[in-house]
Amino acid sequence: MSKDTDNPNLTPPPNTVTFALAQSHFLVGDITANAEKMRTLALQARDQGADVIVFPELALIGYPPQDLLLRPSLSGRVKSALSALSDIEDIVMIVGYPHVDHHGTFNSAAILHNGHQKGFYHKQFLPNYGVFDERRYFDRGRNQVLFDYKGITIGLLICEDLWEKGPIAELKKQGADIVVSLNASPFEMEKQDNRKAMLTKRSREHNLPIVYINAVGGQDDLVFDGGSMAVQADGTVAHEASRFVEQLLLTTLEVGSSKFDAQAKAPLTLSRESEIYQALVVGLRDYVYHSGFSGVLIGLSGGIDSALTLCIAVDALGADKVYAVMMPYEYTSKISLEDAQAQARRLNVSYTVCPIFDAVEGIRHTLAPLFNQSPADTTEENIQARARGVVLMALSNKFGHLVLTTGNKSELAVGYSTLYGDMAGGFDVLKDVYKSKVYDLANYRNRLEDTPVIPERVITRPPSAELRPDQKDQDSLPDYDVLDGILTLYIDEDMGYQDIIDKGFDANIVAKIIKMVDNSEYKRRQAPIGTKISHKAFGRERRYPLVNKWSING
Amino acid sequence: MSKDTDNPNLTPPPNTVTFALAQSHFLVGDITANAEKMRTLALQARDQGADVIVFPELALIGYPPQDLLLRPSLSGRVKSALSALSDIEDIVMIVGYPHVDHHGTFNSAAILHNGHQKGFYHKQFLPNYGVFDERRYFDRGRNQVLFDYKGITIGLLICEDLWEKGPIAELKKQGADIVVSLNASPFEMEKQDNRKAMLTKRSREHNLPIVYINAVGGQDDLVFDGGSMAVQADGTVAHEASRFVEQLLLTTLEVGSSKFDAQAKAPLTLSRESEIYQALVVGLRDYVYHSGFSGVLIGLSGGIDSALTLCIAVDALGADKVYAVMMPYEYTSKISLEDAQAQARRLNVSYTVCPIFDAVEGIRHTLAPLFNQSPADTTEENIQARARGVVLMALSNKFGHLVLTTGNKSELAVGYSTLYGDMAGGFDVLKDVYKSKVYDLANYRNRLEDTPVIPERVITRPPSAELRPDQKDQDSLPDYDVLDGILTLYIDEDMGYQDIIDKGFDANIVAKIIKMVDNSEYKRRQAPIGTKISHKAFGRERRYPLVNKWSING
Repeated sequence: MSKDTDNPNLTPPPNTVTFALAQSHFLVGDITANAEKMRTLALQARDQGADVIVFPELALIGYPPQDLLLRPSLSGRVKSALSALSDIEDIVMIVGYPHVDHHGTFNSAAILHNGHQKGFYHKQFLPNYGVFDERRYFDRGRNQVLFDYKGITIGLLICEDLWEKGPIAELKKQGADIVVSLNASPFEMEKQDNRKAMLTKRSREHNLPIVYINAVGGQDDLVFDGGSMAVQADGTVAHEASRFVEQLLLTTLEVGSSKFDAQAKAPLTLSRESEIYQALVVGLRDYVYHSGFSGVLIGLSGGIDSALTLCIAVDALGADKVYAVMMPYEYTSKISLEDAQAQARRLNVSYTVCPIFDAVEGIRHTLAPLFNQSPADTTEENIQARARGVVLMALSNKFGHLVLTTGNKSELAVGYSTLYGDMAGGFDVLKDVYKSKVYDLANYRNRLEDTPVIPERVITRPPSAELRPDQKDQDSLPDYDVLDGILTLYIDEDMGYQDIIDKGFDANIVAKIIKMVDNSEYKRRQAPIGTKISHKAFGRERRYPLVNKWSING
Repeated sequence: MSKDTDNPNLTPPPNTVTFALAQSHFLVGDITANAEKMRTLALQARDQGADVIVFPELALIGYPPQDLLLRPSLSGRVKSALSALSDIEDIVMIVGYPHVDHHGTFNSAAILHNGHQKGFYHKQFLPNYGVFDERRYFDRGRNQVLFDYKGITIGLLICEDLWEKGPIAELKKQGADIVVSLNASPFEMEKQDNRKAMLTKRSREHNLPIVYINAVGGQDDLVFDGGSMAVQADGTVAHEASRFVEQLLLTTLEVGSSKFDAQAKAPLTLSRESEIYQALVVGLRDYVYHSGFSGVLIGLSGGIDSALTLCIAVDALGADKVYAVMMPYEYTSKISLEDAQAQARRLNVSYTVCPIFDAVEGIRHTLAPLFNQSPADTTEENIQARARGVVLMALSNKFGHLVLTTGNKSELAVGYSTLYGDMAGGFDVLKDVYKSKVYDLANYRNRLEDTPVIPERVITRPPSAELRPDQKDQDSLPDYDVLDGILTLYIDEDMGYQDIIDKGFDANIVAKIIKMVDNSEYKRRQAPIGTKISHKAFGRERRYPLVNKWSING
């Protein structure tokens, strides 16, 4: 793998250093394949004239590796993989990896050059909040690391380090000309704006250019959204990589000037709906693809949640990998049947109608002697939902497709769903999307094409689970804008009863909603995963006890 | 609430200090009720002559409070509760509580005396491994705290602090005569032996007596098993509280001698099976009781897992709160029907037979047009399991009982169970109990009474899920002793492929089992909780990615 010295592009002018930002997807656990991907990208970057290639945080093992970091063979695997990269010449590789030695385990960046490990940096600030558990695994680094290359001094930081004031100030003091930051920063709404604001602030504070590399792709409930950047010493963003896609972004620093070469074309700034929609597409796509499923199966109800889920599935996997089933029963309206069919047709997916009368009747016959003619209640509604769950799971078992659930964050919050019924499935696309945002996303998706893919009626009719005659969601819940307002304050903002009332909501409704949220923790505990898009997603980001005697007001 | 000075017991001899160890159950979140319980216990201890009462770690909010610690009203609630205790006179109260101030949030112990807060100690070592997430919530204390009372100097530590070498050494240096340690230490097999060994070591190292208070009772998947102790400076255990029950244990230190008064009667040392069995009883009892369920519902199969689950439920809740249902289908043997009925009769619980033919046939009719006469496979087996799940959940919805699942750790590890089928329910009693241990516990329970409550045949016949003709577990799994051997090494000991083979297991079987474990993570993610008894229980203690490309051998 020697450098091709005949290629004139390979020798940059002596007063510049070219950085390659390897904004790529690295699979959790797959150390060998990730190292192989690094090799390919490094050679490609070198061919394009890069002097230094930088990979995301922990790229060698993927992020977050969770308890794989506790496996005893970790250290050996990492060492082999790093040494397998040592034959790459004429480009500096900065590799995120877990470092194990007699001092502990660290979240680190290795500097590899011409067969030598020139040094390594250990992350100093370990996030242990939200979705992050880094202090479960890592010890804290205590030292700055800088290295000289082609006439400049490069300082290293990893993710959280840059959100803190200290580490970059110390790098400046020790003579850094530029800071390189390795990240695995998961998507949240508006996060890219926050990253930009932070990078602008930090670069200006210290008059230092910053190269910021983020990972990309889905891992379980997280989506890494890329958007890697090169920020000049004056705080302006010189280069920004696209969001949600792999990209090898090259940027050249003029030594002495703290400026990067001008960018040919800035990527489009994404609208709020667009970035959420893309996150949901990527999260689903990577989960299905990496779990090895041949396709996905969706129970269509004719309602907006399953309609939007269907769109996202088609955009993620292609229409030929999406299977829709409508499972009508007594309370399914003609409108619902028509609209489900219309959705499937417009998106060109396989569509089947499978009435569940026999299943429900069979279950009711089985139960009749025990129920002893007790009056119907939610039990009978749950039986319908569970019959549908059984049908979907049977189709999944028989044909190998992953069942997608269609519950939104509002429903999941208040427990307006049936465990093992509509909650049965492997991935819940809208898990972190409040109902009001579901409408926004449906309208957004409809605007993308001349003919709306979701029939207008699906968006405008009052939502209903259709589990009894003339049922409407708003029979048992406040209007979704009120509900979502309360839920956002209680869940995402962690506000208490009194503070929410002070925001103008009705005390009785607030009390009722808080109680519903607290009482349905057991359902959420058994819910499938889904892509995080908010500041506080259900799952590992919000850890609540099941037995919980915290009083609403106290 | 003034001290009754007429009672001669209230004035201890001047050369002794009496400690009350409040080994009690404090409910997570219920700050007001927990403070009220502290008041009652303090007055009771004072009446019995105690000078100092010590409560467990974080007793004021219960352990583990999880993300309740992030709620903004926490600080105000804690302050009110502590100040409500300030009118208790003539006894020192050492109260575990979460301390919030402008320095951060701490896991603390307050020293309350005669209306004054005389001081507080902040835990220095915050566990962030296993089931513990303390660095998610707490800042680290940096100082020792000692206080003088009745002629002795008392030093405070909280849980993990004592497992480390430093803090007690520092207390000794600063002049402590005795160390008081507040704990919320969850049960694991053999944990009490480890605690004793540690206490003996620490007391001897520093020639210091130690008073060790542990919490008691179940909280979700954890059981606190009590076993509070007073350990003399020579390492001998002078007093030991009973395990798994509330107890107010008084122990008197002779000032100057570092010895406690002799104990009247030491509690029985529990056998391995006995302590596990009690942990399972307490874990289930407290979950059911505090979740407000009127009883539990168990699907009996005639097999050993549901038989043992039934015993534990009866021992936890009483026979009148336990409802058993046998749901036979085509492959249910006559033996299974007889044995299920015999179990229910011997334990005197409500027993119903509910054949699921109609339910299964209804579901199959519904699916027939889509299955298009494809040959039967595990899909049809799962349909049976799911029909049973639907029946149990319908009974639960109708009559308000909690469905218990009966899966053991071996099954859950390899995914030998049906999601939404036999995995449908709110609490899995045997979740952390390997199959070979299930046999041990069944035999243990049978030995407790003259007539065995589990028919001998249930224990001796080969296990079968009875989902197809002549099915045996060992058709698709190795013998349970081999399986559990491999699983213990892979899961509990975190060993890798090669190390397990080196222990003498067949390479092909090891590879197959590891793959089964890794591939069924998605099932475990949606499984109900169950009581932790091992060193590494599924759930919050073992955090694995769903998409996981870690290779078996690499």
